[in-house]
Amino acid sequence: MSQSVSVTNQELDQLCVNTIRTLAMDAVQNAGSGHPGMPMGMADAAYVLWTRSMKHNPRDPHWPDRDRFVLSAGHGSMLIYALLHLTGYDLPMDELQRLRQWGSKTPGHPEHHLTPGVETTTGPLGQGIANAVGMALAERHLASRFNRPDCALVDHFTYVIVSDGDLMEGISHEACSLAGHLKLDKLIVLYDSNAITLDGPAHLSFSEDIRGRFAAYGWHVQEVDGHAPEEVATALAQARATTDQPSIIITRTHIGFGSPNKQDTKQAHGAALGAEEVALTKQALGWPAEPAFLVPDGVYAHMQQVVQNGQQQQAAWNELYARYQATYPELAAAWERTWSKALPSTWDELLPTFEPDAKGLATRKASGATINALAGQIPALLGGSADLHSSNNTLIDGVGVLSAEAPHNRNIYYGVREHGMGAVMNGMAVHGGVIPYGGTFLTFSDYLRPTIRLAAQMEAQVIYVFTHDSIGLGEDGPTHQPIEHLAALRAIPGLYVLRPGDASETPYAWRAALEHTDGPTALVLSRQNLPVLEPRGQHDVYGELGAAEGVLRGGYVLRSPAGEPDVILLASGSEVSIALDAVLLLRERQIAARVVSMPSWELFAQQDQSYRDSVLPPAVKARVAIEAATTLGWERYVGDAGRIIGIDRYGASAPYKEIYQHYGLTAEHVAAAAADLLGT
Amino acid sequence: MSQSVSVTNQELDQLCVNTIRTLAMDAVQNAGSGHPGMPMGMADAAYVLWTRSMKHNPRDPHWPDRDRFVLSAGHGSMLIYALLHLTGYDLPMDELQRLRQWGSKTPGHPEHHLTPGVETTTGPLGQGIANAVGMALAERHLASRFNRPDCALVDHFTYVIVSDGDLMEGISHEACSLAGHLKLDKLIVLYDSNAITLDGPAHLSFSEDIRGRFAAYGWHVQEVDGHAPEEVATALAQARATTDQPSIIITRTHIGFGSPNKQDTKQAHGAALGAEEVALTKQALGWPAEPAFLVPDGVYAHMQQVVQNGQQQQAAWNELYARYQATYPELAAAWERTWSKALPSTWDELLPTFEPDAKGLATRKASGATINALAGQIPALLGGSADLHSSNNTLIDGVGVLSAEAPHNRNIYYGVREHGMGAVMNGMAVHGGVIPYGGTFLTFSDYLRPTIRLAAQMEAQVIYVFTHDSIGLGEDGPTHQPIEHLAALRAIPGLYVLRPGDASETPYAWRAALEHTDGPTALVLSRQNLPVLEPRGQHDVYGELGAAEGVLRGGYVLRSPAGEPDVILLASGSEVSIALDAVLLLRERQIAARVVSMPSWELFAQQDQSYRDSVLPPAVKARVAIEAATTLGWERYVGDAGRIIGIDRYGASAPYKEIYQHYGLTAEHVAAAAADLLGT
Repeated sequence: MSQSVSVTNQELDQLCVNTIRTLAMDAVQNAGSGHPGMPMGMADAAYVLWTRSMKHNPRDPHWPDRDRFVLSAGHGSMLIYALLHLTGYDLPMDELQRLRQWGSKTPGHPEHHLTPGVETTTGPLGQGIANAVGMALAERHLASRFNRPDCALVDHFTYVIVSDGDLMEGISHEACSLAGHLKLDKLIVLYDSNAITLDGPAHLSFSEDIRGRFAAYGWHVQEVDGHAPEEVATALAQARATTDQPSIIITRTHIGFGSPNKQDTKQAHGAALGAEEVALTKQALGWPAEPAFLVPDGVYAHMQQVVQNGQQQQAAWNELYARYQATYPELAAAWERTWSKALPSTWDELLPTFEPDAKGLATRKASGATINALAGQIPALLGGSADLHSSNNTLIDGVGVLSAEAPHNRNIYYGVREHGMGAVMNGMAVHGGVIPYGGTFLTFSDYLRPTIRLAAQMEAQVIYVFTHDSIGLGEDGPTHQPIEHLAALRAIPGLYVLRPGDASETPYAWRAALEHTDGPTALVLSRQNLPVLEPRGQHDVYGELGAAEGVLRGGYVLRSPAGEPDVILLASGSEVSIALDAVLLLRERQIAARVVSMPSWELFAQQDQSYRDSVLPPAVKARVAIEAATTLGWERYVGDAGRIIGIDRYGASAPYKEIYQHYGLTAEHVAAAAADLLGT
Repeated sequence: MSQSVSVTNQELDQLCVNTIRTLAMDAVQNAGSGHPGMPMGMADAAYVLWTRSMKHNPRDPHWPDRDRFVLSAGHGSMLIYALLHLTGYDLPMDELQRLRQWGSKTPGHPEHHLTPGVETTTGPLGQGIANAVGMALAERHLASRFNRPDCALVDHFTYVIVSDGDLMEGISHEACSLAGHLKLDKLIVLYDSNAITLDGPAHLSFSEDIRGRFAAYGWHVQEVDGHAPEEVATALAQARATTDQPSIIITRTHIGFGSPNKQDTKQAHGAALGAEEVALTKQALGWPAEPAFLVPDGVYAHMQQVVQNGQQQQAAWNELYARYQATYPELAAAWERTWSKALPSTWDELLPTFEPDAKGLATRKASGATINALAGQIPALLGGSADLHSSNNTLIDGVGVLSAEAPHNRNIYYGVREHGMGAVMNGMAVHGGVIPYGGTFLTFSDYLRPTIRLAAQMEAQVIYVFTHDSIGLGEDGPTHQPIEHLAALRAIPGLYVLRPGDASETPYAWRAALEHTDGPTALVLSRQNLPVLEPRGQHDVYGELGAAEGVLRGGYVLRSPAGEPDVILLASGSEVSIALDAVLLLRERQIAARVVSMPSWELFAQQDQSYRDSVLPPAVKARVAIEAATTLGWERYVGDAGRIIGIDRYGASAPYKEIYQHYGLTAEHVAAAAADLLGT
C-alpha cells in the first residue's frame, strides 16, 4: 500500500468498487460478449456485502457454516468473478481474461462445481432466488437439528442478488411466498432495481409494486440508494436483525453505472460496451485508459482483509465444533454422516420386501413404505410434495410437518408450487447436509422441468417422486395423464429415470437414487395397483424370475425360457406384468418369450457390453417393447426388426382398465405383435 | 312450474344452487372419484354469475362476443358441467351420469373442443387464470382494432374462478402481473377462498395476503361472503364498473358446503363423499334422499331463462353486426377473415427469398424477415417475446408496442414471463380472432412446456419462436444451450417441431406453422449465421439442390448423387450445411452421399410410405444423422446399421465454432463415420 498512504478509507472503497466495474467492462469487452451493465450497477452494494457483511473464508469455500451468496441474476457473472478474484478466492486474473472461453472457470453464467465460491448455477432467471430459499431452509432445518443452546453450529445467512427478470418469473413468486410462509429470516435479498430489461425500459412490461408484493408475502421490505454504501450497509444490518421475516432490500441502481452514453439503457445490459465507450467510461470514473484489467495498488490488500477475517471466523467455528464434538459426540458423529451423505451399509436389512399379492400394490405405495423404512437410518432425508402428499405417498410417518415453528420436522408442505419445489430442492442439495426429495404427478414434472436440468448440471442429489405415471391414473383424464414425459425425462443428460415394475422393484429404485450422490433421480411410480411378483425365484407359472435387485443394473432378465428365446419382450413399470401375461399367451402358440424389465435406460447404458448382450442377445432380433408412454426412443432397444407398443396421442378420462384396452396396451396385443414378428 | 307457485324467487334461487350442489355430489359419487367440494362451495357465486351477470347464449357457444368463462380450478369440473346442463347447453343429463367415463363429454377435467361451452382446457393449476388473461387481451386488442364509436362489435368480459392452488402457482403471478400492467379491466376473477387444499388446511403452506398481492399488481380487490348471493352480485357489478384495473373478488366459501361431516375439510376436496355422507348432506340441505341426479320442478325453467336472454343478446349483436357490415364493409370483411383464419393464397409472392451469402444468415433473422413479410397480409398475427425481442427477431416493424394505452399495437412485451406467455397465447388462440406467436430461447421452452402440451390438447394454433437452438449460441454457456429440448418437444403429441436448415427453408417453416390451424408449432432457429443455400437448383459444388419447399413435407432430398447413394446423411437446422460439407469430403473417398434435410419429424411422418421411401430408400442402410442435440430418437431414421452424431451431455461456454469442434459436430467426423459404416 506504499502508494496509497494518502488515500482515505472511503477513497479506497471507491477504488475497489471501480475496480469491480472496470474489470467487468474489460472482461466483457475482451470476450466480445456478456453483460457489463449489471455488475457496474451493483458493484457498490455487492462490495459492501462481500467485504463488510458476509461471513466467508476465500481459503475454504466449503466451510459448512459460511454465508451463502447467490447471484440470481447470473448474466451479471462478472460481478461474482470480480469479487471472487479480488477477495482472494482461487480464481486468478487470467481466468477473468478468459471470460466465456473454452475451458475457463469463468463461463457466461456462473456454474456450481466449476468455479470455487460459486454456490449454485444461475442464469435461467428466477432459479437463483428459489435456490436461495432452499439454502435458507436447509440452514434452518440443520440448525434446529444440530444446534444446542451453548453451541450454534449452524448459523449463517443466505444473500441473494436478484434482477427485475428474476422477480417477473413465476418461480420467484412460488419460492418467495414459501419463504415468507416459513419465516426464513436469514434470507436476505438485494433487488437490483435498475428499471431496464433486455428489451428496454422495464416499464414496458413490468409495473408491479414490489414493496406491496413482498409485504403480502410476509417479508421485511426496505429501499435504498444502491450507490450509497452506508445506506446499503445499514439496510443489511437491519435485515440481519429482523426476525421472523425474510428481507428484501430494494436497491435502486443505474445499470452500466459510469458509462456516459449507455448508463440506464438496455445497451448496457447484454452486450459489450465497445472500446470507445469503455474508454469514455474509464475517463468518467477517473480511471487510467490503460492497461485493461487494472487492479490499482491497495485494492488487493484492502479486499483481501476478507481472507484474514474469514480465517479467523472459521477458526472460531472450528473451536466451537471441537467443543461440540466433546460435549455432543453422538450429534457430532451424525453431523459428519449427514455432510458426507453416508448411506447405511445394511441395505438388505433395511429395504422392505413385499409378499405376493393378487390385489397387487401401487408402486407409489411401495415407495411410501420404502421412504418410511429408510427415514430412520438416513436422517438427512427431507421430503415434500407439491400439495399431493397423500397421493404421492411421500410423508414420513411420525415426524410432523416442517414449519416456521417446527423446522426440525422432515415433511415439507410445498403447496401447489412445483417449480419452486424443484428449485428449493436444488438449493438444499447444494447447501449440503440434507438429501431432498419431492413429489408431484409425473405430468407436472413439466412444471419443474427447468430445475431438473439444473440439478443435473450441478450434479446435485435431488430425488423426484413422480407418481400417477400414465393413463393408468384413469378418470382424471388427459390433462393429468403423462404421455411424453418419460421420453422427455430420459432426454435430460445426467438424470436417472427409474420406473420400477412392481412393489419389489421399488426399494431398489430408491436405493439407486440414494446411491446416485452426484446427480438427480426421477422415480416414476404407478397410481394403480400392480401385481407383486416377489418373492422372486422359482415361480409356478412363469418359471424362474430374476431378482428385483436387477433394477440396479437398469435392465435385467425377469423371466426367460430354458433355451434361447424366440422373442424378447421389454417393458417398464406397469407394463412389466402385461409382458409377463403375454408370455403365457405366447406359450400357447409354442413361442418362447423372454421378459426384460427395463426400469432405467441410463443405468442399463452404464453396464458393460457383455452384460447388455446377455440381457438382450444380439442374435434375437424379434423384440417387442411395451410402455404406456410415447414410443419415442424405444427403437434403440427393439431395433429395425422390432415393434413398439406405446401411446403417441393423448389419454382419456375413464377407468384405467378401459383405457388400457382401448389403447391396445394388453397382453393379447403384445402376443399378437410378437407372433406377427415371427411370422406365425 | 305448477308445483312451485308458492316458491319465492329467493327460494327458487336456493333450489337451483342446491341442484348444482347435489348434482356435483351425485355425479362424483356415481363415478366413484372426483372433486365434489369445490362445486358445492362455489355453487352460490357461480349461479349468480351464470344467471345474472354473464352474457352468453347456450344455443350458440361460438358467438364471438359472448362473455368467456374459465374454471381455472378445473378439478371442480362438475360445477361447469352442472351449469352447462342446467342453463340449456347441449350437455344432457346422461352425460352428467357418465362423468369421468369412456367417451363421455364430462371428463375428469374440462376439455375445450370436447364439451360445448367449455372455453379452455383446465386442470393443471394456474393455466386457466393465465388463459383468461389471454382472452381478455384478445378482446381488448380486437375491440381496439374493430370497434367504432357507434359500433362496439367486441365488448365482452372474461370471468374466471380460481382456487388457492391456482394462486400458489407461479404462472398466476406472471399472468396477473401482466394483466395489471396492461390494465385489462374486463377480466374479473372470483377467488374461491376456502382455506383447504388437497393436503389439508391451506395455512400449512399458504399464508400470503392476497389482497395486498393483487393490489401490488394494480388490481381492484373486493372481498365477499361467497354464500351471500347479493354480496356476490354487487361485487360483480362493481367489478364490471371498474375501469383501468382487472378485478379480483375474494369469495370466502366453505368447501363441501352442506356436508355435515366433511365441509371445511380436505376430505371434501378430492374424493367422493361416500353414500352415507351424500345422504346426510341431502338431509342437511332439505333435499330428498332419492332419486340421485334430481332436478326439482322449476329449476330448468328458471335457469333456462339464460337461453332466452342470451338469444335476445345475440340477436341484438347480430343487428349491430349487420349495421357494421353496412357502414364498414371493409372492416367487416377483415372481421370475417380474422375469425376464419383465412390465409393469403399468394404464398409464393409473399414469402421472402434470400440470396446466397458467404457470410450466411441466422435462421432467427430469416424468421424475422418472414414475420415482417407476412404481417401486413395476416393482420391476425400478434407477436411477442419474453423480453428477448431483439434476440428472437420477433418484432413487427412499424406497428408499435401493445400497451394499455395502445392495445391495437401488435408487438407484445411479455416481460420475463415465459410460462405466462405460453398460457396467455393459449387463451388468445382459443378466444379466436388472433394468431399468437411468442419467442424465447429454445432452452426456456422448458419454462412454458406445460402450456405447449395444453395447446396441443386444445388443438390451439400457437406458434413458438424458439431461437438460440443449440450449442451454436456459444458463450452464454450450458445453462442456455439446449441439448434435450428438441427430443422433448418431438415427444409432445400434436405439436409440430420445425428446425429449418437455412434462411431459405425458414419461410416454409412459417408457412407450415400458419397452415397448422388446429395445433401448435415450434419453430427452432439458430442464433448463428448459416450458409444460405438458395437459390436452389443447379449448384456448382453439390449438383442439383432440392427446393426449400420440401420443408412442408418434413424431410426431403436436398442433394443426391446421380445414381443410388452409398450413404444417406440426415440433418436438421444448422447441421444441414455440415452434412453438405461432408459430401465433398466423401466424394474425395469415392463415396456418393445423399443429404436429407429433416426439419420436421411430424410432417415427414404424415407423408405416405412411397414418398418416405423415396427420400430414405430402404435399401440404403448406411445412414448418418447429425444434429447438435441429444441423439435420442434418431434411431427411428438411421436404423440398426446407422450412426448418430449428436450431443448427450451438456454444452460449454466458448465461441461456438470451438464447441462444435470439441464436440465432434464437424464434416470430418460425419465423413469418417460414413466411411467407417461402409468399411472404407
